[in-house]
Amino acid sequence: MESRRGFASDNNSGIHPRILESIKKVNTGHRIAYGDDPVTASAIDKFKLHFGDDIDVYFVFTGTGANVLGLQAVTESFHSIICSDVSHLNVDECGAPENFSGCKLETIPTSDGKISPEDIAPFLHVFGNEHHSQPKVVSITQSTELGTVYSLTEIKDIAGITHENEMLLHMDGARIANAAVSLGLNFKEFTKDAGVDILSFGGTKNGMMIGEAVVFFNKNHSRNFKFIRKQGMQLGSKMRYISAQFEEFLSDDLWQKNALQANEMAKLLARELEKIPECRITQKVEANAVFVNIPRKYVDKILKEYFFYVWDENGPVVRLMTSFDTREEDIENLIRTIIDSIKS
Amino acid sequence: MESRRGFASDNNSGIHPRILESIKKVNTGHRIAYGDDPVTASAIDKFKLHFGDDIDVYFVFTGTGANVLGLQAVTESFHSIICSDVSHLNVDECGAPENFSGCKLETIPTSDGKISPEDIAPFLHVFGNEHHSQPKVVSITQSTELGTVYSLTEIKDIAGITHENEMLLHMDGARIANAAVSLGLNFKEFTKDAGVDILSFGGTKNGMMIGEAVVFFNKNHSRNFKFIRKQGMQLGSKMRYISAQFEEFLSDDLWQKNALQANEMAKLLARELEKIPECRITQKVEANAVFVNIPRKYVDKILKEYFFYVWDENGPVVRLMTSFDTREEDIENLIRTIIDSIKS
Amino acid sequence: MESRRGFASDNNSGIHPRILESIKKVNTGHRIAYGDDPVTASAIDKFKLHFGDDIDVYFVFTGTGANVLGLQAVTESFHSIICSDVSHLNVDECGAPENFSGCKLETIPTSDGKISPEDIAPFLHVFGNEHHSQPKVVSITQSTELGTVYSLTEIKDIAGITHENEMLLHMDGARIANAAVSLGLNFKEFTKDAGVDILSFGGTKNGMMIGEAVVFFNKNHSRNFKFIRKQGMQLGSKMRYISAQFEEFLSDDLWQKNALQANEMAKLLARELEKIPECRITQKVEANAVFVNIPRKYVDKILKEYFFYVWDENGPVVRLMTSFDTREEDIENLIRTIIDSIKS
Amino acid sequence: MESRRGFASDNNSGIHPRILESIKKVNTGHRIAYGDDPVTASAIDKFKLHFGDDIDVYFVFTGTGANVLGLQAVTESFHSIICSDVSHLNVDECGAPENFSGCKLETIPTSDGKISPEDIAPFLHVFGNEHHSQPKVVSITQSTELGTVYSLTEIKDIAGITHENEMLLHMDGARIANAAVSLGLNFKEFTKDAGVDILSFGGTKNGMMIGEAVVFFNKNHSRNFKFIRKQGMQLGSKMRYISAQFEEFLSDDLWQKNALQANEMAKLLARELEKIPECRITQKVEANAVFVNIPRKYVDKILKEYFFYVWDENGPVVRLMTSFDTREEDIENLIRTIIDSIKS
Repeated sequence: MESRRGFASDNNSGIHPRILESIKKVNTGHRIAYGDDPVTASAIDKFKLHFGDDIDVYFVFTGTGANVLGLQAVTESFHSIICSDVSHLNVDECGAPENFSGCKLETIPTSDGKISPEDIAPFLHVFGNEHHSQPKVVSITQSTELGTVYSLTEIKDIAGITHENEMLLHMDGARIANAAVSLGLNFKEFTKDAGVDILSFGGTKNGMMIGEAVVFFNKNHSRNFKFIRKQGMQLGSKMRYISAQFEEFLSDDLWQKNALQANEMAKLLARELEKIPECRITQKVEANAVFVNIPRKYVDKILKEYFFYVWDENGPVVRLMTSFDTREEDIENLIRTIIDSIKS
Repeated sequence: MESRRGFASDNNSGIHPRILESIKKVNTGHRIAYGDDPVTASAIDKFKLHFGDDIDVYFVFTGTGANVLGLQAVTESFHSIICSDVSHLNVDECGAPENFSGCKLETIPTSDGKISPEDIAPFLHVFGNEHHSQPKVVSITQSTELGTVYSLTEIKDIAGITHENEMLLHMDGARIANAAVSLGLNFKEFTKDAGVDILSFGGTKNGMMIGEAVVFFNKNHSRNFKFIRKQGMQLGSKMRYISAQFEEFLSDDLWQKNALQANEMAKLLARELEKIPECRITQKVEANAVFVNIPRKYVDKILKEYFFYVWDENGPVVRLMTSFDTREEDIENLIRTIIDSIKS
Repeated sequence: MESRRGFASDNNSGIHPRILESIKKVNTGHRIAYGDDPVTASAIDKFKLHFGDDIDVYFVFTGTGANVLGLQAVTESFHSIICSDVSHLNVDECGAPENFSGCKLETIPTSDGKISPEDIAPFLHVFGNEHHSQPKVVSITQSTELGTVYSLTEIKDIAGITHENEMLLHMDGARIANAAVSLGLNFKEFTKDAGVDILSFGGTKNGMMIGEAVVFFNKNHSRNFKFIRKQGMQLGSKMRYISAQFEEFLSDDLWQKNALQANEMAKLLARELEKIPECRITQKVEANAVFVNIPRKYVDKILKEYFFYVWDENGPVVRLMTSFDTREEDIENLIRTIIDSIKS
Repeated sequence: MESRRGFASDNNSGIHPRILESIKKVNTGHRIAYGDDPVTASAIDKFKLHFGDDIDVYFVFTGTGANVLGLQAVTESFHSIICSDVSHLNVDECGAPENFSGCKLETIPTSDGKISPEDIAPFLHVFGNEHHSQPKVVSITQSTELGTVYSLTEIKDIAGITHENEMLLHMDGARIANAAVSLGLNFKEFTKDAGVDILSFGGTKNGMMIGEAVVFFNKNHSRNFKFIRKQGMQLGSKMRYISAQFEEFLSDDLWQKNALQANEMAKLLARELEKIPECRITQKVEANAVFVNIPRKYVDKILKEYFFYVWDENGPVVRLMTSFDTREEDIENLIRTIIDSIKS
């Protein structure tokens, strides 16, 4: 059962064939380790095609690594980071942000995964008072942990209040490709151009084997990042094999095709679920996640066939995620299983 | 020039074809992320075949990650870690051990990369005195950063003084396969059976793409390691692709064949260098590194053809490393280049 | 104006004459530094008179030091600490708990400064899941930052859920004497006997010059505390001068007399404020703080005469604190100022 | 025996009567806490009289606190700090520098407590290489842990190589008054004017009860120090009582009288010891410490009368320290005890 395509998470999927091929292609001879190689240079150039030349980009292994080290680069231990209470940063990194940056996380309760300038404002009155952690970064996730997507205007508004207060805007883009497809914008338009300062750019969840990137839109912020990455245990020696993946990922719109497929399948899944009276979709389906309330007695039955996460025991609400390799037949199978669980 | 097989480091080499094939083989369908999958279970079983059933093993991305997190698991911030002054831990991890464990490193000057009970003893008089960091771990590297190998007796003697003082013995085994081949022992004999408590087991430098393991020989020490690994940003989501590499690496003696080739080529290189009067080998060649004193004027010429590290500007002494894919013709080419540089 | 007795905070007050005399009394000759002296031994004995013999007690400089180091002693970086959102730990220590323990703070919104088992329960479902910080300590403040006091039953109930989940209960007792007087209990009854595991015992706010204590009710928790205190920069060399203060503080009920005076004056202040129609008291007055809603136009006038903290700009609500040296005439003066500000 | 004036350490002494009186003098009424009071302002002005107006000065509790937080203010975790192997920073702070700054300490073996530009140079070749901690600060102790004193030229030479490499010079001045008296210079001449960037200024060891200061000679370095001090648990609430001590200490040359007495008594002790054939002084006596080799059989006898530290079991060499309150009769008594131990 385990190797069937399921809906537990987009990181349960495998490596896209073109990505795997890219690894194979660079597997010849010796290359200088730690990134001083032409494959890495070429991958960085691909990032510059998307984001412009005046960026700094560094490859790391995990989304947690990208978030934590990117934030460490721009904070001191007496700073605080403002984020939503459901952010990966807050709930899924086992306290790494606090432990490695030393910073306090100030969390904002959210019902749809998004935060707003109004949410942020109350945290800003402590500036200059040594008794309180000093707000330094706002971190948002795009697409969010609840499968929603910030609009361009929403991002710009958050960037506005952030920069007015001499703070920085971080975006956790573990699923940035899904957001780009959803918004119909290129990466640069809703990151750099919208006021994002530091971006965690995700590859693993959209068809890569291993690889995330930290993208800095202001070189002052990345000045020391090579030391932070090495000390942060995220500098790979055989870097060419991560770089090759990114190069392929950003070529010929592979990132887009993959994300589009995942998003389309989420929409299809949502449409099918809406036809089932016992199911109630609880979040807008704007990327590749569907949150759906299903009565518990059915959930237990469905879980025998498919592994997925019960997001909220109250309801319960379950999370169903699609990925680059999800196909219509997978949706049909899942829907059939759900209907069977209700009927039986 | 960059993709020619050189002698800069064993991590400049690529992925062994069998390892690459193992990645491809598990690239089907979905698998639970973060290691709760059958490929990972199978790879862990392979470790148990080598080390016995009563171990705990965790996969991480880098040698620095394996060292730092393995040590963090058994220390508190007021402890100290005793190691050689040339240890990777001390000089090549950008201060990660201090920053993440909080511990002080107590370093022992060494001429051959090895430390002895006599070297360790003077650090042990501070126990119980709250003004001083408390010695908790001795860390040795096998094979060492200078290409030498601790004998079984040497390891047991170090384990002796370590355990008598209620301390723990850590082994940085980034090149443990090279040491095993050199000693003619299986892994267990000179680690667990010799008194090692925590082992960083290296894969990347011996033919893998990405992957190191932390092996605990006492489950009390690994009790919390899953949290430490996750917080330490070393928990991969698509774990099966690291696990598959380890499974293949430990099957059908691939690890041994690779290390043997590297070690044999180092010996050949040493023999050829000894024939050149201008070259003087400065360390015993017991694994896959050759340290050789070559007059500077020749070094500069050779560097135009081959990239490698000048280990000690005084001499100078250069480090030449062989790897699993080094062939006799590579040695011949290098020797020819050296001789040409002297003659020209 | 500055040296007039005001209502800004109990730490704006001075040293009680008996405390100052105690410092003078031990100022003869030389004493072994760092606490290995008879004055310190004697002060520790005084703590044992109050709490029983089977405790470990350590003196530190500040309440932040007591909280942070006491918590560090029983946590690892992947743990979380559950506390109220207005706790000193969360808002007044500039992020020291996160930075030094590495732990995440999980905060509970509170209207009266107190938290309950029902508030704590939702944080407990993540045990064993490596993606989430693991709850390890519940921290409550007694008396609270809002001048309220946990009843004995409330403390026992919190201890119950805490221990059932193999967690520990920490009490921030910066104002523990005020709580003891309020409850009419001795220290032991509502700490050790009620299930508190680690106690920050405050002296400075109740008449001492400098000095707080960390009291451990289980010696397993204090096993390494002497190293943690020294590394935590909270080990004083001329310890006798802190110890002498504590000895006097705990003798002849000085702590009680001081706290009683402060509490009585808070009650008097509250009674007088209640007579003023424009003023509305917003929290129960159970210790030495009075929170009172006063229209802003009056607040601004009063602030010209007395410095104090506007706790909540919405209202506004101001915090008025009494201390061991507050006298009836001080209350009369303040009330007169308030009435004048309203009338003028 | 314990309260007799001994030679264990200058922090075994008490509070100078004028200092104690200064505490009493400010013990009237209420004062704003945390340093925003006129006593603190006045003490800071005294520092400016000595060091010039363009400094920033912050009071803390301990020498370890001053060193660690002062260094934290100017470092990031990937930096290293170069110091002598016998420095307080390295051996007497229980690893606090590593744990709180995250930095690596690079230690230089020294026979007299002093380091030189030649000692520092070998650490400077790693700049820009991300694998290695980046040297950022040189820290020297004045007077040193071995009772010696850097000359003005020696300090300037160290400042030279330090600044040439864009690094900073830190001075641990726990016994800076003893050094000033020894050199016949005012504080400013051998600190700020000689190129020191950050100074730990000691009060406790020279007659104060509790109090050290961190003095910054470049306000860029202290920009965030108020947050670092608060987070670092070194911000006292009843600050006036530390400030009053410093104000008195720096008035009417109290610091100088105290240090002069200690230094003179050390010289007298050395002269008397030189008359005893069995004793051999091992370090220059330039401040208030005498290191003397005495045969072990006599040491054991002397220790029955006086507590002091055996500095080096080889020899053995014992450390005898004088303090501001040491009198000629104390020297006579000690010498008599030593002679008796030899004769008996």
